Amino acid sequence: MNRFCDLADFSIDELRALLKLAGKLEREPEPRALQGKVLALLFLNPSLRTLTSFQAAMVRLGGSSFVVSPEMSIHRLEYRNGIVMDGVAAEHIREAVPVIASYGHAMGIRVVADRHSLELDLADRQFRELAALVDVPLINMESAVNHPCQGLADWKTLDELGIPGNGGRFVLSWVYHPEPLPFAVPAAVLHMASMRGMKVVVLRPPGFELPESIMRKAREAAQRAGGSISETPDRREAMQGAHVIYAKSWSSTRQYENRRADEALRREHMTWCIAENWFENARPDCRFMHCLPVRRGVEVDDSILDGSRSVVIKEAKNRMVAQMAVLHQMLGG
Amino acid sequence: MNRFCDLADFSIDELRALLKLAGKLEREPEPRALQGKVLALLFLNPSLRTLTSFQAAMVRLGGSSFVVSPEMSIHRLEYRNGIVMDGVAAEHIREAVPVIASYGHAMGIRVVADRHSLELDLADRQFRELAALVDVPLINMESAVNHPCQGLADWKTLDELGIPGNGGRFVLSWVYHPEPLPFAVPAAVLHMASMRGMKVVVLRPPGFELPESIMRKAREAAQRAGGSISETPDRREAMQGAHVIYAKSWSSTRQYENRRADEALRREHMTWCIAENWFENARPDCRFMHCLPVRRGVEVDDSILDGSRSVVIKEAKNRMVAQMAVLHQMLGG
Amino acid sequence: MNRFCDLADFSIDELRALLKLAGKLEREPEPRALQGKVLALLFLNPSLRTLTSFQAAMVRLGGSSFVVSPEMSIHRLEYRNGIVMDGVAAEHIREAVPVIASYGHAMGIRVVADRHSLELDLADRQFRELAALVDVPLINMESAVNHPCQGLADWKTLDELGIPGNGGRFVLSWVYHPEPLPFAVPAAVLHMASMRGMKVVVLRPPGFELPESIMRKAREAAQRAGGSISETPDRREAMQGAHVIYAKSWSSTRQYENRRADEALRREHMTWCIAENWFENARPDCRFMHCLPVRRGVEVDDSILDGSRSVVIKEAKNRMVAQMAVLHQMLGG
Repeated sequence: MNRFCDLADFSIDELRALLKLAGKLEREPEPRALQGKVLALLFLNPSLRTLTSFQAAMVRLGGSSFVVSPEMSIHRLEYRNGIVMDGVAAEHIREAVPVIASYGHAMGIRVVADRHSLELDLADRQFRELAALVDVPLINMESAVNHPCQGLADWKTLDELGIPGNGGRFVLSWVYHPEPLPFAVPAAVLHMASMRGMKVVVLRPPGFELPESIMRKAREAAQRAGGSISETPDRREAMQGAHVIYAKSWSSTRQYENRRADEALRREHMTWCIAENWFENARPDCRFMHCLPVRRGVEVDDSILDGSRSVVIKEAKNRMVAQMAVLHQMLGG
Repeated sequence: MNRFCDLADFSIDELRALLKLAGKLEREPEPRALQGKVLALLFLNPSLRTLTSFQAAMVRLGGSSFVVSPEMSIHRLEYRNGIVMDGVAAEHIREAVPVIASYGHAMGIRVVADRHSLELDLADRQFRELAALVDVPLINMESAVNHPCQGLADWKTLDELGIPGNGGRFVLSWVYHPEPLPFAVPAAVLHMASMRGMKVVVLRPPGFELPESIMRKAREAAQRAGGSISETPDRREAMQGAHVIYAKSWSSTRQYENRRADEALRREHMTWCIAENWFENARPDCRFMHCLPVRRGVEVDDSILDGSRSVVIKEAKNRMVAQMAVLHQMLGG
Repeated sequence: MNRFCDLADFSIDELRALLKLAGKLEREPEPRALQGKVLALLFLNPSLRTLTSFQAAMVRLGGSSFVVSPEMSIHRLEYRNGIVMDGVAAEHIREAVPVIASYGHAMGIRVVADRHSLELDLADRQFRELAALVDVPLINMESAVNHPCQGLADWKTLDELGIPGNGGRFVLSWVYHPEPLPFAVPAAVLHMASMRGMKVVVLRPPGFELPESIMRKAREAAQRAGGSISETPDRREAMQGAHVIYAKSWSSTRQYENRRADEALRREHMTWCIAENWFENARPDCRFMHCLPVRRGVEVDDSILDGSRSVVIKEAKNRMVAQMAVLHQMLGG
């Protein structure tokens, strides 16, 4: 495997093989599989789970990693082409990225949406520009509109919970959050549930429809897998018979480039905080998922997170396990 | 071993076995013992020696570690329960700690006293709350009133110097420091010397008596080990026949929650800076110990640190060696 | 090998043996050579390439490293001797450096020129003071006037390009840069090319002559190796028949301690930005080298960096490979 940048680049069978490998590595550790192998981790935005889960994944396979991150007091990087670099930026990504890549057997890059342009973010331009500079195997550790490691980990969690692929009802629900959050996780998780053949419902208030390009891509995946996607602002309709509700906040597509207008629109929906009464007509054992970090009392009630519906810690642990499978396939053997 | 959070949780024989293992690992490296094993290191306060000695310890045993530390530009963590998280904190410790723990085969946590309440700090409440969220083997890397790795390392140093357990005279001396320092090291070192059966003398000016709960716990350990503990503000009395003086500053118990009053009280004792004349009636080869970092010319004269009495570098090195033994017993085999 | 602090400490044959080992490790990885071995990395100044290339080098040989760096929220370190430490510095280098060294099987130190005194910087006093505190094998990761790892890596790059030692024409050219940069890289690269027996030309505007102590040392090395060194401010003269131009900015020796005067002098030479027309009378395949980071459009035109002359990424990769050889010889076997 040379690139793990989008679940859509893989067939369902390929992903199932990865998940099988993940389960195997969980049961039967391979502490020498990647001995002497280095993963270069470039974070252009802060991270907790992704940073630590990738480091742990490499060590568990006998390898290791190094980190370049925004909290390091390195010089500022320049992104723009054709510019005279007489300002604060002391190095161009055209040098920095190939050099960092050259020290690794593989590389992971995180660069989240900068929100200057909906169009450019939906095209994942920043990540694609960086990826074009890398000539070793590459992992997308979250870009403007993708987060395949989160998607793969959540697929594993759904499998472990025995939630059916075909026939399982997956509600992706917008929730309130004080910050305008990116589309990366909802897009990746929507695509995952669609590839898994589930009955996917996107539950969101008016103004928070997901971008059409994201929906279209997922709809096509659902069709191929024998699943379906629908959208509604109606909670009861969405939750009817649900196996799982996946909570996530995201920006308004309509006001994406206007932070203040987005905030005003979000503030109208502060009641979108998941509580036990949301589950009235769901399946009794309906699960609660969230990629973390989660704001308690804002996105979801404490009682849900602390109760038996929540599988958020399992999801986070599966980030490491799923990534071990990706790394093993990329660098092993 | 599932927890290494307090020397008092172990019998003298168990600690002696650990020290024996430490010595063995020093002589006969085991560079494959912990291959594929990961130690999760959570620092909620800055660290130099603890951070680097734990990382080095894991590598020397063939494993590795990852670090979450305050200088990382991660989101702020929330500690309070039942709160609506609409402020700056983006993640609750109830999620962050179990997730970080799930990536490690074992975890270390450092959280020093926040000094809001003497009672809560003496109960080690912050560390206990975090520890309750961890379901992998756990190491206390310094809490409000404990620092078992420092205690174990110093025990090893005393052994190496041939300073006797029963019969050895150990002076724990308060020294001046411009900052109000916590009780963790004096408490841990006092307990160690007491368990070792030594004749322990706590030398400190009025107002700097150690908290009664710390003294009582050490007195009980001394009694079981056949040693003794006394307290005095009199330097000549304390140093009479001493094998070793362990210098450490700490806050006034009386003014613990009042930083200014504590500072005023401390400033009355700026002459408590250890110099050669302190050793007049000590044993000729009386040693000088300090956990580091040490302020030269404030806590102790340069001549002592640069002279033959000082064993501070040996103590620091023994941090790594003692921790190797703890990790080997926790994660090996 | 106990110290790798200056290319001048080694014979040409010793360096050739190191380069041969580097090439071997590149072709035939040894992922178990340094298992259980720890490299202590102390950065007193920020770093990107050196930091990541040393970490990667250790992992590729089966070992690992830990990093102490300025972005870590550790206490401030004191350098001055005999001082009463009642200010912001909480630890003296006389404790910090031996402790950090004691955790490693070897240590690397970076401390660049502080520019308070040309004389002290040329004597490399800061690095020498720190080095005197280290009793494990030591690597200079860049000091005020040295950078042997850069020199060794560039030697390897020249070898790979087939640029002849005796007879090859090496132009070390000053270029404009908005900051006053240190002498470490030009000094190390000048010495390397001289030891390699090349015809070295230092091309620089008036006022930017390299310090006489650096030139003298290189001249002696050139003489021993059968090469030569000349200096000129004339571009056409310098580039005549050149095999390679190595671009690097450095401070004015005349105005070293006066930042403003140095800046004024540098600003007179903003046209020293390497472009294709510099190569008119060079060899047709004349290469462009730079240690990175490089300011595009300021030190060199984009067209050179993006064209076939540039070998800057290869140079950076060779940092890791050359350091693997140094570490292997220091810690292996």
